Amino acid sequence: MIDTVHVIGSGRVGSAIDARLRERAVPVRPDGAELVLLCVPDDAIAEVAASIETGPWVAHVSGTRPLAALGRHERRFSLHPLQTFTRSRGPEQLDGAWAAVTAETDQSHAVALWLAETLGLRTFDLDDSARTLYHAGAVFASNYIVTLQRAATLLFDAVGAPPAALEPLMLRTIENDFELTGPISRGDWGTVGAHIAELHERLPQLEHLYETLAGATLALST
Amino acid sequence: MIDTVHVIGSGRVGSAIDARLRERAVPVRPDGAELVLLCVPDDAIAEVAASIETGPWVAHVSGTRPLAALGRHERRFSLHPLQTFTRSRGPEQLDGAWAAVTAETDQSHAVALWLAETLGLRTFDLDDSARTLYHAGAVFASNYIVTLQRAATLLFDAVGAPPAALEPLMLRTIENDFELTGPISRGDWGTVGAHIAELHERLPQLEHLYETLAGATLALST
Repeated sequence: MIDTVHVIGSGRVGSAIDARLRERAVPVRPDGAELVLLCVPDDAIAEVAASIETGPWVAHVSGTRPLAALGRHERRFSLHPLQTFTRSRGPEQLDGAWAAVTAETDQSHAVALWLAETLGLRTFDLDDSARTLYHAGAVFASNYIVTLQRAATLLFDAVGAPPAALEPLMLRTIENDFELTGPISRGDWGTVGAHIAELHERLPQLEHLYETLAGATLALST
Repeated sequence: MIDTVHVIGSGRVGSAIDARLRERAVPVRPDGAELVLLCVPDDAIAEVAASIETGPWVAHVSGTRPLAALGRHERRFSLHPLQTFTRSRGPEQLDGAWAAVTAETDQSHAVALWLAETLGLRTFDLDDSARTLYHAGAVFASNYIVTLQRAATLLFDAVGAPPAALEPLMLRTIENDFELTGPISRGDWGTVGAHIAELHERLPQLEHLYETLAGATLALST
């Protein structure tokens, strides 16, 4: 569908995408590309898009920026891989991930799906106006897991338990389809109260976080 | 080291432990057991322990209760598997998990290590007085992951994105050694502010949770 792609930006996402396109034997070069893919920092998208002459497809991979960031380009779409990327891994980071497709026309939707399939991404459609809520969801599911692990690590360090022991627990919680166990699921508020009292005494910087999460856990129980 | 074990309680943990002991050809029976393992609800431990005649080793598998819950038994210890268990899985749930050992004597420590090794658990020592902080850490790492997933699912449902798409993201966050990516890692407070404003408008029940986690993420950044 698309003969040549120009990937602009070689950060975490751009370098994985570039490597995957080359793996798939899609010509990746700046000159005469049919699709220009902006993998630049969010704040740079509008400026870089404005610097590109109209003609080719122009797309971005940002979770936060609307299509309007692509400015006057009418042949435009966005494809946001819902994944966290690291520089120490390669294109295999795309495998198994989903991606949000935002497109205004059937034709741009088809180009987005071609790109997703080429990259190895499963897709769902995302309305341009739904982007902020969607991205907040991604923050809950990724960034805030890091926060939980860091909080738990502080506690484990305080009692001499190995933080590495948390990982099998976290993974199994996901594998078990997020089945809630533990004191809140049992209505054991004595234990919850004891946790809060001990945090207040020993690690007060975690008390409010624990309490807020306990309240949310109860509120979100089904 | 121990010839026979009596497992009391057939809940999530007790049934997995019972099945693992049988797999390992350890005789499991009530009469004349050398080790009585209490896998009963936390609130029942003291009463059940009090009903056992002194003589055999008596241990519990609770993360919350001190050794004192085992009362007058002097040959006592606790072994808490740091894992979330479900009824739909078997003894393989113990594989790869760690467990906290609390023991007062060299001999009880040795029996606890024998039990852990037999069950397939890696161990670390936990002081009886450190139990509450330790258990609060486990709640952060397991129960609150469920809470994050439920919050993210509410958001994805609100925008028509498939909640199943969150799982590869959550797993990779763990696999990537909890490397923080996303707006907070980039100092992109405009995006964080946009999330909060949109939550305030559309899903206000998540606003305080998001904000508290954002503050904690910043505070726990290294």
